[in-house]
Amino acid sequence: MNDKPIPDIVIGRLPRYLQALEHMLEQGYAVTSSKELGEQIGISAAQIRKDLSQYGEFGKQGKGYSVPFLVTQLKQILKVDRIWDMALIGAGNLGKAIANYQGFTEHGFRVALIFDSDPQKVGQVIHQIPVLHTSTMIETIQSHHIKIAMLTVPAQVAQSVTNQLIQAGIKAILNYAPITLSVPEDVHVQYVDPIIHLQRMTYYLD
Amino acid sequence: MNDKPIPDIVIGRLPRYLQALEHMLEQGYAVTSSKELGEQIGISAAQIRKDLSQYGEFGKQGKGYSVPFLVTQLKQILKVDRIWDMALIGAGNLGKAIANYQGFTEHGFRVALIFDSDPQKVGQVIHQIPVLHTSTMIETIQSHHIKIAMLTVPAQVAQSVTNQLIQAGIKAILNYAPITLSVPEDVHVQYVDPIIHLQRMTYYLD
Repeated sequence: MNDKPIPDIVIGRLPRYLQALEHMLEQGYAVTSSKELGEQIGISAAQIRKDLSQYGEFGKQGKGYSVPFLVTQLKQILKVDRIWDMALIGAGNLGKAIANYQGFTEHGFRVALIFDSDPQKVGQVIHQIPVLHTSTMIETIQSHHIKIAMLTVPAQVAQSVTNQLIQAGIKAILNYAPITLSVPEDVHVQYVDPIIHLQRMTYYLD
Repeated sequence: MNDKPIPDIVIGRLPRYLQALEHMLEQGYAVTSSKELGEQIGISAAQIRKDLSQYGEFGKQGKGYSVPFLVTQLKQILKVDRIWDMALIGAGNLGKAIANYQGFTEHGFRVALIFDSDPQKVGQVIHQIPVLHTSTMIETIQSHHIKIAMLTVPAQVAQSVTNQLIQAGIKAILNYAPITLSVPEDVHVQYVDPIIHLQRMTYYLD
């Protein structure tokens, strides 16, 4: 493995590879090929080979890839060979659904703190975590050294909450609010927006 | 506007442009520039100009783009100048949150049907829509001529539900289940998976 940074567009594909490979692992696959992997996720075998060659040689010519080895390597590259604590801001329907999502821990994540500004929600316990008031958010996130936040607040408060998260030292935000956030360069934002995904498909419909 | 198909990667950016432009429209902007738009969404001005030039000339050199005109044009291109009825499969926490999401209708979508296989959920009313049993799913979707489905079922049943959706004539699936779906070439799938988004960011964290 060399030290050249992997292009962001490649990084964007690695979690998809990891997801498919973990699924293969559950199904008992020991070995796979770029062709087989590509067919599962709709990416060309050549692209997969190129992406994986960016940071080392995992497969032997003609012998395919060892699935468990590749899973371990990808987890290491993506730094999900550990558990990242996260803060969830917004304890509405969506926040509750996310807090209860079972897949986090096995994929490198754990909801550690939940915040809401609604006094009626504060004190509720979701997935064994008490909802705290957002007034304590900055200091609590800081004292827990949490770097990742998930944002499920209404669009109109998303930017002001984000500003507080940045003050608290958050470096990665998964934003469910339907608004583009302004953040400094060292803060990463990913958007989860059903509208964006749906509008991307309607172009192709009759 | 010419009739050449727009590359898929460009289509993928158009909903982001539309989202930012609609936000500008709400804030009363009449005119914008590729620079201003680019700064809001983190895409270069040159890329935006190139993307928008693919299907016609919307801006005049040095005069910027008319925001309302561009919104109208993008909605037309993405075919969200109409309302698409959708079927929602899975009435758990996440399904409920999605059914209650207020943003659909103003962006071209409406949840028209909700299905679940759990007898305890069937008959519940979510956002004024009664939950139907999945046993009636194929014929009900067919009779409503619905082309878009949102999938919020557990991963282990997602593929079998998808097979039924394809039988029912669904051509676009927004999949919240953490599994890659196998579909025919004429069926579009978009994945909403917090894990994929989170893993894409941890690479950059210390």
